[in-house]
Amino acid sequence: MESVNKVACRIRKLEVQGARNVAIAAVKALEEVAFQTRARNRRAFIEELVKAKDTLYASRPTEPLMRNAVRWVIGSVESRQESEVTALVRIVSSSACEFLTTLEQSRDCIAEIGAKRIKDGATVFTHCHSSTVTHLLERAKQAGKDFKVICTETRPLFQGRTTAQEMIDLEIETTFIVDSAARGFMKNADIVFVGADAISAEGNVVNKIGTASIALVAQESRVPFYVVSELLKFDPITLCGEYEGIEERGRDEIWKGAPEKLIVRNPAFEVVRRDFIHGIVCEGGIIPPHSVNETMRRMYPWVFL
Amino acid sequence: MESVNKVACRIRKLEVQGARNVAIAAVKALEEVAFQTRARNRRAFIEELVKAKDTLYASRPTEPLMRNAVRWVIGSVESRQESEVTALVRIVSSSACEFLTTLEQSRDCIAEIGAKRIKDGATVFTHCHSSTVTHLLERAKQAGKDFKVICTETRPLFQGRTTAQEMIDLEIETTFIVDSAARGFMKNADIVFVGADAISAEGNVVNKIGTASIALVAQESRVPFYVVSELLKFDPITLCGEYEGIEERGRDEIWKGAPEKLIVRNPAFEVVRRDFIHGIVCEGGIIPPHSVNETMRRMYPWVFL
Amino acid sequence: MESVNKVACRIRKLEVQGARNVAIAAVKALEEVAFQTRARNRRAFIEELVKAKDTLYASRPTEPLMRNAVRWVIGSVESRQESEVTALVRIVSSSACEFLTTLEQSRDCIAEIGAKRIKDGATVFTHCHSSTVTHLLERAKQAGKDFKVICTETRPLFQGRTTAQEMIDLEIETTFIVDSAARGFMKNADIVFVGADAISAEGNVVNKIGTASIALVAQESRVPFYVVSELLKFDPITLCGEYEGIEERGRDEIWKGAPEKLIVRNPAFEVVRRDFIHGIVCEGGIIPPHSVNETMRRMYPWVFL
Amino acid sequence: MESVNKVACRIRKLEVQGARNVAIAAVKALEEVAFQTRARNRRAFIEELVKAKDTLYASRPTEPLMRNAVRWVIGSVESRQESEVTALVRIVSSSACEFLTTLEQSRDCIAEIGAKRIKDGATVFTHCHSSTVTHLLERAKQAGKDFKVICTETRPLFQGRTTAQEMIDLEIETTFIVDSAARGFMKNADIVFVGADAISAEGNVVNKIGTASIALVAQESRVPFYVVSELLKFDPITLCGEYEGIEERGRDEIWKGAPEKLIVRNPAFEVVRRDFIHGIVCEGGIIPPHSVNETMRRMYPWVFL
Amino acid sequence: MESVNKVACRIRKLEVQGARNVAIAAVKALEEVAFQTRARNRRAFIEELVKAKDTLYASRPTEPLMRNAVRWVIGSVESRQESEVTALVRIVSSSACEFLTTLEQSRDCIAEIGAKRIKDGATVFTHCHSSTVTHLLERAKQAGKDFKVICTETRPLFQGRTTAQEMIDLEIETTFIVDSAARGFMKNADIVFVGADAISAEGNVVNKIGTASIALVAQESRVPFYVVSELLKFDPITLCGEYEGIEERGRDEIWKGAPEKLIVRNPAFEVVRRDFIHGIVCEGGIIPPHSVNETMRRMYPWVFL
Amino acid sequence: MESVNKVACRIRKLEVQGARNVAIAAVKALEEVAFQTRARNRRAFIEELVKAKDTLYASRPTEPLMRNAVRWVIGSVESRQESEVTALVRIVSSSACEFLTTLEQSRDCIAEIGAKRIKDGATVFTHCHSSTVTHLLERAKQAGKDFKVICTETRPLFQGRTTAQEMIDLEIETTFIVDSAARGFMKNADIVFVGADAISAEGNVVNKIGTASIALVAQESRVPFYVVSELLKFDPITLCGEYEGIEERGRDEIWKGAPEKLIVRNPAFEVVRRDFIHGIVCEGGIIPPHSVNETMRRMYPWVFL
Repeated sequence: MESVNKVACRIRKLEVQGARNVAIAAVKALEEVAFQTRARNRRAFIEELVKAKDTLYASRPTEPLMRNAVRWVIGSVESRQESEVTALVRIVSSSACEFLTTLEQSRDCIAEIGAKRIKDGATVFTHCHSSTVTHLLERAKQAGKDFKVICTETRPLFQGRTTAQEMIDLEIETTFIVDSAARGFMKNADIVFVGADAISAEGNVVNKIGTASIALVAQESRVPFYVVSELLKFDPITLCGEYEGIEERGRDEIWKGAPEKLIVRNPAFEVVRRDFIHGIVCEGGIIPPHSVNETMRRMYPWVFL
Repeated sequence: MESVNKVACRIRKLEVQGARNVAIAAVKALEEVAFQTRARNRRAFIEELVKAKDTLYASRPTEPLMRNAVRWVIGSVESRQESEVTALVRIVSSSACEFLTTLEQSRDCIAEIGAKRIKDGATVFTHCHSSTVTHLLERAKQAGKDFKVICTETRPLFQGRTTAQEMIDLEIETTFIVDSAARGFMKNADIVFVGADAISAEGNVVNKIGTASIALVAQESRVPFYVVSELLKFDPITLCGEYEGIEERGRDEIWKGAPEKLIVRNPAFEVVRRDFIHGIVCEGGIIPPHSVNETMRRMYPWVFL
Repeated sequence: MESVNKVACRIRKLEVQGARNVAIAAVKALEEVAFQTRARNRRAFIEELVKAKDTLYASRPTEPLMRNAVRWVIGSVESRQESEVTALVRIVSSSACEFLTTLEQSRDCIAEIGAKRIKDGATVFTHCHSSTVTHLLERAKQAGKDFKVICTETRPLFQGRTTAQEMIDLEIETTFIVDSAARGFMKNADIVFVGADAISAEGNVVNKIGTASIALVAQESRVPFYVVSELLKFDPITLCGEYEGIEERGRDEIWKGAPEKLIVRNPAFEVVRRDFIHGIVCEGGIIPPHSVNETMRRMYPWVFL
Repeated sequence: MESVNKVACRIRKLEVQGARNVAIAAVKALEEVAFQTRARNRRAFIEELVKAKDTLYASRPTEPLMRNAVRWVIGSVESRQESEVTALVRIVSSSACEFLTTLEQSRDCIAEIGAKRIKDGATVFTHCHSSTVTHLLERAKQAGKDFKVICTETRPLFQGRTTAQEMIDLEIETTFIVDSAARGFMKNADIVFVGADAISAEGNVVNKIGTASIALVAQESRVPFYVVSELLKFDPITLCGEYEGIEERGRDEIWKGAPEKLIVRNPAFEVVRRDFIHGIVCEGGIIPPHSVNETMRRMYPWVFL
Repeated sequence: MESVNKVACRIRKLEVQGARNVAIAAVKALEEVAFQTRARNRRAFIEELVKAKDTLYASRPTEPLMRNAVRWVIGSVESRQESEVTALVRIVSSSACEFLTTLEQSRDCIAEIGAKRIKDGATVFTHCHSSTVTHLLERAKQAGKDFKVICTETRPLFQGRTTAQEMIDLEIETTFIVDSAARGFMKNADIVFVGADAISAEGNVVNKIGTASIALVAQESRVPFYVVSELLKFDPITLCGEYEGIEERGRDEIWKGAPEKLIVRNPAFEVVRRDFIHGIVCEGGIIPPHSVNETMRRMYPWVFL
Repeated sequence: MESVNKVACRIRKLEVQGARNVAIAAVKALEEVAFQTRARNRRAFIEELVKAKDTLYASRPTEPLMRNAVRWVIGSVESRQESEVTALVRIVSSSACEFLTTLEQSRDCIAEIGAKRIKDGATVFTHCHSSTVTHLLERAKQAGKDFKVICTETRPLFQGRTTAQEMIDLEIETTFIVDSAARGFMKNADIVFVGADAISAEGNVVNKIGTASIALVAQESRVPFYVVSELLKFDPITLCGEYEGIEERGRDEIWKGAPEKLIVRNPAFEVVRRDFIHGIVCEGGIIPPHSVNETMRRMYPWVFL
């Protein structure tokens, strides 16, 4: 369990960042738990896994991809009749492997699909940094597409600088603006691509603060707005009425040395309503957000068990 | 002329900031020109003033308040029949004084009018820093109104911090957010007040970058959006089809050490369309932006000469 | 002063109803004050009038037409240089008469203008009861126009029943619905006419509760929405930032015998934003609400003194 | 068959009210038919059921829940191969029981899910009376949520009074308004919950007159609007192009003693388009109305047979 | 009077086309009437002019520019106290001349102002043919602006071909599309310029069929939409409630040999609501349509006499 | 293969027109290929079919119905284990037959469903010519529905004339207008029906140029807009990110003899976003476009193989 605690701790402290990396770390931690188990029987083994799950779940509020990863591994164990522990360990290991492979393939598949949406001469608008989005843009570049990028700096943590640097490294012509200049530059854009932290049963998407304004501004300018995301960021608890938790971070990120009496609010994410989203570019293709619940059930029925 | 050159230079270098301060400096520079004139006759005297005007106009692109101030002073001279230079100098001096008094009275009047729009228990949303707006909020506080303020940090130059500090000094409960969080917090607001740098003949308003998104977000949430401004920020050249010039500032303000190949765009202002503006709180009362041209003609006919 | 007190009291108790009737009663009360004055000089006489004014103003919060009427009469006295009291009494009397004549002519003029907007075969939608609107419809009927009316019952006081009865008496085919059915029936309407209780400097209109929803529903169905009103319902205090006061009436009007703990809210009026109003049909023609302030200044400059 | 006739008659006369109660009565009537059957064979037995179905269907136009209940019971019989009548009677009885249990569980499940959407300190807006909605609010109250309710009186039959009374009994702070005041009070609301009488294949919802205006007003104020309903109110005939029938009720409900020539229109229901609906809170979770057809097929495939 | 009859006839038969040409012809006809008068006194002379006016007014329904021209000439006569006929003839002649000069100057002024709105590299969208618009585009070209034009063919009479030909002659890169393709091409446009046949007191504009759809499409794409027109196309009768008459033309213009039973409808014009119009580019500058009534009163008070 | 080449050629030259006819021709061509095969074994036979497929696919860019037809026939062969060529020929023949039957039944089913949406007294608006739409209108007429039709001429090829002629032949009262008059006449319409050339995975629809403007105008006037189409026009490549190809046709169709330097653009189709579409009337009922992907998978899973 030590490894799980350590991983959970690193997730909590943001030493592991990005939904994908968190999910990968969690799956590997589970595998580690399995390898080091001292359980004598199926029941004890599963109990250990469930305990690990609880620790991982508690590490951070909004990580549906990680929770789905854990769900998959433990579900694989529970759905088999094996009673021998060594066999169960093998199941953990292989289902962990499967999950990671699936994730890798999803990303490639998404990049492949989304890249086709970029027409020659187009200008792509993006916000914050999403490895899924930059993977897509890289693919488009490799495919010989000739396009430009506009990206926002993304206060308070300036993740847009990472995006800008990656684009420059790919030799894509890139324009960099402050977040609040989005409305003025949107008229020059042909398409918007943003990532996602979570997808709700209603088809809404949770992403970095500022995304909802960009969606609104894109709609006002008739620029199609796409969310680029693994479908496994779908969060099943939202189906049951739970709100997606929105992490609120420290005041120093915004203003170090702000007057003490000043209330500084720093929500890291916000919700984009499905009506603003032209499509979710996912491993199942480009789908309307309105049907995400049914598509999930078809592709990943085990999420709902 | 030296004094005018010096003032123009300080304006250019942003050592004098804020539309009001720039206008005041220009008026005083004109007065100085008059005091130091060596002109022997009316024609020569007016020529000197016009030369000073040209220097001042050229100091910065978007300063209608300053240009109207200069217009007022020179117009006062031109409209009188006096031929003696000493008399003309007195006219410059008294019309300069009149202008500054008018400006002072306008600000008080605006504060008085706008403060009435703040209901007890209300939350006021503002963006950037405008002395006209903070004057209004101070007046409301003095009048015993119980209200809160939400203000944005306003990248890239963080003028929102000045606003926040002033609010805290006035003991008004204030919430501080990054610009891109405006949409989420707008639902808690009851009214928006922003300043203006210029007002066009179409009734549109030029203000700090980010204002147009806030106007859009306010409209989406059915929150009334008011521009607080001296009417003399009306720019008569827009009536003749000219676009208001939008200053674009340096890349370092946004990202010092940005990759060289990265295009960094930094427009300081943007246009808010009249359809988003519930009213302009000015010295003539609260007026719809659609009638600003006719109201100007009634109140300041000399602007159009 | 007794007569003024009595009139003010009757206004307060709603024994005098409708903006027009209240204004007429106030003007007549002022005239009575003049007739019965014991003042010996101009100053004393004017003091009496001002005292009467204060009593009348205090009788009810939202009565700009009445306040403008009083303003007119007292203004007429103040603007003349007469010092003899008998002459001043005559001025009160003649200006009172003038006001009532103007009011009468305005109504006729409005009816004449508005009736032209009703095309043969049209369906007119209206809400609540407004004598200015029913006067207009009567004129259209007299002019031989063939049209139908849809009217709402207008909870809580069912003023729509008065409208319906008047329409039936005029032999106009009339459909009667509950307020909340407005959206469904709007698709059958060709034009909406409603009255006004007050017009603000921003061009917004205050009218019976329910009007704003009807305006919204009309906009959604692309049905033109007109306010039919004497321009003198313009309230000059709104220019200075004051909100139009909205009367809140008793709970029994809505539910006699409601559970004690239940909060029953009964605002009698609400604001319709200028963006929903195609035009104000007034004695100055059909004008966009956006220019109401400038039109008032042209037609009734004394309101602003 | 007598019992069926009696039940159908009571439904017709509105002695049984509310979609749930009508469905329950119909299921029980079918059971009674089965218990009292004199049929000698399967064919005759089914014929009796079908006759009962026709009687029940004819009792009222807009009762998809009842029709689905009947469909379920008869479908259960038809899908089994049993030929003995006594066995078939048992099937009727057990499937009737199953249906009622399902209905009960759905309601609990809906209350559970929907209650999570109410945040502490929230204000819930509702219209008319829906036992599914009030069940949800009760659950939220039991769960310790601290919230307020705004409800409309709901003309012409004042069902809002029932809602208000129930809320007061639950000790929930409740504000009561006339229907046409909804727009003004919506700005204070955080969420809207309404019931449903029918759900169409397009994802539109039929509910009490006034609901569509409230949906429009909620959208205008950016307040999320949820329909709370058993999914079994889905009406399969709408898939085949039929419009949902809208009952039109008597004029006396609106105005007893209205002038004879006055046309009084009294549609009891109206359609809310899916674009206004953030989600349907049903036993399958919170789903976008756009996917209701596919969700139905997954959860209740027998409805489509 | 013969000359007036002839001119009226030519207008009726569309041998004189375009609002400007019709107005010019009418003014010249009036001048002719004056030159050939046999009237002995002022009264008789004015009677002749009024008769001519009636004939000209009757020649076509929607010609406010022509009617304002006639109003100007006759008003000039009526407002002078001259009693000698020869003097009155001179007044007609000089006021006719004045009008034509004003018209010419207006067009130049409009071209000057509007041309400034075209930025280098811009794409201008236009519909139908308007000499005022093409004059503006020519001016912009002469001023060295580098821009492109998109124009629609404008069914049924293909006036867009005239526009296209003129653009090609000016060596402006021009794209030509069918009317119904406007929505697709609007995204490439930076500004829309259209002409006007009439301007109403509400600030609405009457122009060639298809203009309202283009305005809607421009709004949807956030492309500014400007009407380019002499202010004298303002029609004072609309202030009094009259609708602008919309000419309906023959079926053969649309489909020669259409099946007899087919109803072919061919309205030549339609109304564009002021909310779609960013500004009216007129001789008074670029003004919001909402203030057109007050601007008219300032610039052309005689129109309202 | 000759027959396939000939058919492909005729499709290319537009000698076969309309999505249905193209699909039928392709299916028959495949059947012909099968009948004339000289293949000795399964592999060779399938190779021939695939070659035919490639030829047919290349004949025209936007023909998903044809491609789905070919997919069905070849899929039927591939999914069976038969190795004898004669058996495989029979499979081609029977699956071809099945496809044509399905198509026929779909059209009837669509007509049946859609006709129910036409209420007595309704006015139906349509654009261009679609045999599926006119089939539906014919069915409604046969069912005794009393309704009118408005149809546009549909530039550049005037297909609206075909629609108008067919309506007249069915003795339906029909109004014929130019495309750009759609906005004015939409207010008289109760429902819009248009056909489709392709349906994308996002739920968007490709149809004749002009359809998107009509959808926008219908939305503005709150008129329900339905697409009438076989579901098999769903194009699976759009799921993978491909854009639907939009055919651009010759300049002479628009203006024979246009000035050489004039750029004439003639896209034949355009995309209507799902937000404008109330429902797709298809063989699976009336469904929201948002769920088209999931409905396809349920009804035609072989399309996705």
